[in-house]
Amino acid sequence: SLGLARANVTHGVREVIVCKDGKGKVGMRFRAVNKGIFVQFVAEGSPAALAGLRFGDQILQIDGENVVGLNHDKAMDLMTKCKNPGRIALGIRDRPFERTITLHKDSSGHLGFEHKDNQIVAIAKETSAARNGLLVDHHILEVNGQNVIGLKNKEVGKVLETAGQTVTLTVMPSIIYDHMVKCMDFSLIKKKQDHSIPEV
Amino acid sequence: SLGLARANVTHGVREVIVCKDGKGKVGMRFRAVNKGIFVQFVAEGSPAALAGLRFGDQILQIDGENVVGLNHDKAMDLMTKCKNPGRIALGIRDRPFERTITLHKDSSGHLGFEHKDNQIVAIAKETSAARNGLLVDHHILEVNGQNVIGLKNKEVGKVLETAGQTVTLTVMPSIIYDHMVKCMDFSLIKKKQDHSIPEV
Repeated sequence: SLGLARANVTHGVREVIVCKDGKGKVGMRFRAVNKGIFVQFVAEGSPAALAGLRFGDQILQIDGENVVGLNHDKAMDLMTKCKNPGRIALGIRDRPFERTITLHKDSSGHLGFEHKDNQIVAIAKETSAARNGLLVDHHILEVNGQNVIGLKNKEVGKVLETAGQTVTLTVMPSIIYDHMVKCMDFSLIKKKQDHSIPEV
Repeated sequence: SLGLARANVTHGVREVIVCKDGKGKVGMRFRAVNKGIFVQFVAEGSPAALAGLRFGDQILQIDGENVVGLNHDKAMDLMTKCKNPGRIALGIRDRPFERTITLHKDSSGHLGFEHKDNQIVAIAKETSAARNGLLVDHHILEVNGQNVIGLKNKEVGKVLETAGQTVTLTVMPSIIYDHMVKCMDFSLIKKKQDHSIPEV
């Protein structure tokens, strides 16, 4: 299905070319985790969003330099100092802390789990969530590939409701999610985050 | 390569049939994590090892019953009470908390990381580990698919040394690993764990 294709997490490595916009911005924020650099935020309509970068992507290389062991300021410096602002080559590993799980709605439209905002808090017995081994204390980052980070409970519910019979969730253990969004301004996540449906 | 094939983590669901041995044992231990049941230990030469079960596999179903929300005692009860000890059907999700990363040795045979026992503690710049985005605070569970849990530093070094030019590591964030092996008797892990090379 299209949702499945949009949600696909490969854990593979690829090269992505981004450019700076008129204000010299690429439209993403980094966070250092376990000596790696991760995408913590992608702004709606930004060059980063258009290049297909997503929350949780690991940045391996910026403009030819490995970023291992850098803090997020040093990694941002590499973006700032890049030779050609119209063409910054990034080495990306596709969302290493994430995985997908595909569920099917029952005849009442239920998937079989409760969420509080975008965190999974309970699994109901004898449901698609139970049969497929969905876990609590995980955050839902995407629904059929569409980012739901920062959405309120009702909004996440709405996305799930309108998602069709087959729903692929992209999840991350909450313990890692909490670390990844630490120090983030919540209004930024809520208002400016890219929530568009990705092209396949 | 064969190592890559042996190490493959699919996150997919499959059915596995196990039987009890002469002593009524299957040869594995469970742990409840996030309302799911996980394989915490597989004994060498046991029915569980022969059936291809591994540390970190999620048990979805035992003998037709979903295990969501059970504690490990209740899950073990389902194994004990099963109708036919010669044929217990398990629904398994392939190691949801794990991922693989493939590295290549340089001309000196180095991969580019330091480990303490089976935990990754440092990444060297300009190495295969750095280029591929290996992370610290992760545990190595398998090397080319071979379980290294409970091995001491030297033994892990030996496995890495003899692993050939291309080495696929199966890793898990240490924060999740620590939770998974909590309450485990270390001598059990060390002495009786299945460390055999898996068949593909």
